[in-house]
Amino acid sequence: MIVRDFYKLKDTDRSVSDKHWNSVRMLLADDGMGFSFHITTLAANSEHTFHYKHHFESVYCISGKGSITDLATGETHQITPGVMYALDQHDHHTLRAEETLVMACCFNPPVTGTEVHREDGSYAPAGTG
Amino acid sequence: MIVRDFYKLKDTDRSVSDKHWNSVRMLLADDGMGFSFHITTLAANSEHTFHYKHHFESVYCISGKGSITDLATGETHQITPGVMYALDQHDHHTLRAEETLVMACCFNPPVTGTEVHREDGSYAPAGTG
Repeated sequence: MIVRDFYKLKDTDRSVSDKHWNSVRMLLADDGMGFSFHITTLAANSEHTFHYKHHFESVYCISGKGSITDLATGETHQITPGVMYALDQHDHHTLRAEETLVMACCFNPPVTGTEVHREDGSYAPAGTG
Repeated sequence: MIVRDFYKLKDTDRSVSDKHWNSVRMLLADDGMGFSFHITTLAANSEHTFHYKHHFESVYCISGKGSITDLATGETHQITPGVMYALDQHDHHTLRAEETLVMACCFNPPVTGTEVHREDGSYAPAGTG
């Protein structure tokens, strides 16, 4: 059994930050669960465009307020606590935080922890670094 | 893109209850994500013994207070918001809610939605009903 505490991990190298964005990796590929699990915090008044071409991701809003726009359809959905979106089509999307968003994220295949967002908003496929 | 709201699903057939326990299935196997994602609520002052022999499960505490005991080792871990446990060894365990626990749960393989807890606290393997 693995037991980890977000509040202890957030000051370790399992906490990854980018501009207006932080992700604490509660579970990564090497934990052997077949998915990774992250608590991601997006700063208030920030906007992020991602395109996980090689991963499925689900994102559940724990707290905060914002929206997500599906860039293929132009459709925008409001995000409030209890709302989940799942990128089952590897959807290219823009996420906006009006208030600080705290999100619980699952990735399949699991993120290894070494990925960076590439120019196109994607992570590299698993196994290619 | 799939968008679902916990507060809308909790009065539908995606909400499954057992004694002192409710689980809202935000994502199931047929969503094609390769994992399922549930928001599970355990009533205050309840105790639950589970043994997912055929699934990996991670559980992140959103709110509440309780503990988990690993029945193989006898070790008990406190559960508070931000604590996650992952049953990477299909660990037989007892979960106790002192206050109402709200947990974000990921299962691999994904739960289909038709499983029931069996006598031994497990769900049947995927594909066997």
